[in-house]
Amino acid sequence: MAKSILIKHGTIVTMDQDGSVIRGDLLIRDGRIASIGKNLKETTDEIVDASGCAVLPGLVQSHIHLCQTLFRGAADDLSLIDWLKKRIWPMEAAHTTQSIRAAAQLGIAELIKGGTTCGLTMETVRHTEEVFRVVEETGFRATVGKCMMDKNDVPPDLRENTVDSIRESLKLFDEWHGKAGDRIHCCFAPRFAVSCTRELLTEVSTLAKKHRAIIHTHASENRNECEMVESETGMRNVAYLDSLGIAGSHVVLAHCIHLDPEEMETLTQTKTNVAHCPSSNLKLGSGLARITEMLARRIPVSLGADGAACNNRLDMFTEMRTAALLQKLAHGPEVLPAARVLRLATIDGAGALGLEQEIGSLEVGKRADVIVVDLNNAHAVPVNDVVSTLVYSAQSSDVQTTIIDGELVMRDRKLLTLNEESVIDDADREAKALMDRAGVSV
Amino acid sequence: MAKSILIKHGTIVTMDQDGSVIRGDLLIRDGRIASIGKNLKETTDEIVDASGCAVLPGLVQSHIHLCQTLFRGAADDLSLIDWLKKRIWPMEAAHTTQSIRAAAQLGIAELIKGGTTCGLTMETVRHTEEVFRVVEETGFRATVGKCMMDKNDVPPDLRENTVDSIRESLKLFDEWHGKAGDRIHCCFAPRFAVSCTRELLTEVSTLAKKHRAIIHTHASENRNECEMVESETGMRNVAYLDSLGIAGSHVVLAHCIHLDPEEMETLTQTKTNVAHCPSSNLKLGSGLARITEMLARRIPVSLGADGAACNNRLDMFTEMRTAALLQKLAHGPEVLPAARVLRLATIDGAGALGLEQEIGSLEVGKRADVIVVDLNNAHAVPVNDVVSTLVYSAQSSDVQTTIIDGELVMRDRKLLTLNEESVIDDADREAKALMDRAGVSV
Repeated sequence: MAKSILIKHGTIVTMDQDGSVIRGDLLIRDGRIASIGKNLKETTDEIVDASGCAVLPGLVQSHIHLCQTLFRGAADDLSLIDWLKKRIWPMEAAHTTQSIRAAAQLGIAELIKGGTTCGLTMETVRHTEEVFRVVEETGFRATVGKCMMDKNDVPPDLRENTVDSIRESLKLFDEWHGKAGDRIHCCFAPRFAVSCTRELLTEVSTLAKKHRAIIHTHASENRNECEMVESETGMRNVAYLDSLGIAGSHVVLAHCIHLDPEEMETLTQTKTNVAHCPSSNLKLGSGLARITEMLARRIPVSLGADGAACNNRLDMFTEMRTAALLQKLAHGPEVLPAARVLRLATIDGAGALGLEQEIGSLEVGKRADVIVVDLNNAHAVPVNDVVSTLVYSAQSSDVQTTIIDGELVMRDRKLLTLNEESVIDDADREAKALMDRAGVSV
Repeated sequence: MAKSILIKHGTIVTMDQDGSVIRGDLLIRDGRIASIGKNLKETTDEIVDASGCAVLPGLVQSHIHLCQTLFRGAADDLSLIDWLKKRIWPMEAAHTTQSIRAAAQLGIAELIKGGTTCGLTMETVRHTEEVFRVVEETGFRATVGKCMMDKNDVPPDLRENTVDSIRESLKLFDEWHGKAGDRIHCCFAPRFAVSCTRELLTEVSTLAKKHRAIIHTHASENRNECEMVESETGMRNVAYLDSLGIAGSHVVLAHCIHLDPEEMETLTQTKTNVAHCPSSNLKLGSGLARITEMLARRIPVSLGADGAACNNRLDMFTEMRTAALLQKLAHGPEVLPAARVLRLATIDGAGALGLEQEIGSLEVGKRADVIVVDLNNAHAVPVNDVVSTLVYSAQSSDVQTTIIDGELVMRDRKLLTLNEESVIDDADREAKALMDRAGVSV
């Protein structure tokens, strides 16, 4: 494993507070950024030539589901109810340790190849220990949560009792939180208010505070969901979660499309994080999250691809571009300019995961999560503005090299911690077997 | 040049009327599809191994501007008025023969690399002969129109008088229409009602009928544009164009976002083609075209990337996905399913250009515009449904091989009719010089 890497001759898009862009070199030593400057003369274990490339912090996705990667293309063009009941839940219930491993490997392969170096992922109710193992082996940085669901209307195959759900989450936390030199974190991941009892949510709130852990859940993605919560609790979804203590800078709420002004205000006051998933919101017909208004209200927003079953890519370049374009549809071409979107995808993602001191920008002392993006392509030139090029023109296949925690995990498009060919073979085989078990035919 | 090519072991997505998908081989002879079937045993000049790949008709874009490719990233996040007046018009006016050549080469390089084999392109007012030359040299299939603008509010650098505009268009038509074995067509391209006099539009209408040529123009992209036309003519935009004879199956109207029900009905009755440009419509904040309603009304719809100045990609994979996702936002997840979108991008695009008998599907006897798309990638597997994979997961960089009119123009990602490195160098150099001439700094 490399202990020192020198990235030379790049256009370094630091994403620091001033948005500095520096032409020069970046030195990595012992997992951290040691120096940024012109013509660094250092003897290193590895040299990466970044001529014609942008060098930027690894992208951070604040809402994904690695376990769903095998479901790509198996749940398209369906209404949300059919999507969940006929496809997602049966398929999640049909997972085995082996299929979870195949899904996590496939997802992480795609993420690393597309420049995502860190993700907040909600898994299914079982087999989450296998996801942690894959994260450990692949060198990916992740905050992983086992999905928690204990309500009666959850299908029996996936339903847990409250005590077991919490016990299993705590067990994973003890075993995995802070592992691999603090590269791996564990979080609490109740699926959404509709599938969790008040008791479960309350206990999660208490435990998260006690363990200084993140809570990762879905909120207000769908009008029906909001109505169900309101009819049961008499409260709006975000207000209900807040009343149970599920609000604050340690909480990440995926989607947040259908919010009233008071819920918006609650998010501002509590500094609760919103994970915006534009492709998923479109593909499921969920609606258009009011990101421009959220940013004006200083609500912390970041981006995620959601799962492959509702996207069908785990591609942050697609999400950046889609996020920007959708806000322009709503508010005109000047809103959410490229530079702001790139912050959502980097430093703001790091903030959602509580890691903004460690990752999300290229600054001396930070952990070295770095990607090198080749802009010398017919679809990217002329590079009139490097940030515009990254957000509007670049695509995930332009990522040449990915470094996480100072380790090369992809170089010149070749994965170094995964064998892509066998990842693909395993995914094909396990997906077929899983569909058979689930009784799903596409 | 190859006279015969055998594409072997592919998943052939024919886009024929039944939507047939065939596992097997496709034989090309003398520019046309000679045979499709299993285990074709033929001696050919070239063999393309398509194992793990989809083989499909080349994608057809019904609205692009090759001349704008150098403007990529030079006009972002601006309101439409600033976009046009401060950037696009000064930059178009600053074009020289050399910069037009660089723009067209760059655009065609990107298109071929992304699987687009045919485009309907509106150029600027001058230098369009150079675009034709580049189309001829590169083997691209295109219907090219010189932009026509003769109204007083057009900036003087770009304004023509009516007679000269028509004379120049006719000259290009005589010289280029049907050239290169009918691979190159010429059309009439008045920019939009706002920049063209009634006299010009009327004459274009007559000439197009006489020469059986396409008319390519913009219509109802922007609310202000519609208001300007209405205040001047007392008619809605599409009604005004129709009243001048600019309607019919030989007419392609780009955008058509702001239409009233009568205009919709006019499009249906006249079989006028709508070129839908979803990314561009978002990025300029223009609005959301009612594609679902148009298709229900049997209006012929196809897709285009528009220019690099307002997209900033010429990437049909992006447009397919974006088109589908936007309609789901408006009408729920079940509308515009993947198979329908792929028709918009292939056979329906061919229809817009009046070429549906020649291209747009893989059927014996048709001209051989064929692409081979590698689906054996971490971001594409498992391929639970090949059409879903193409529309929702695949990306332009997955296109391995592009064949136009029976000629290989890209093989294994290497362009064969262009030198990508010098295309990029030329584009960089010419873009800088053009910005200087235009006084635009990004």
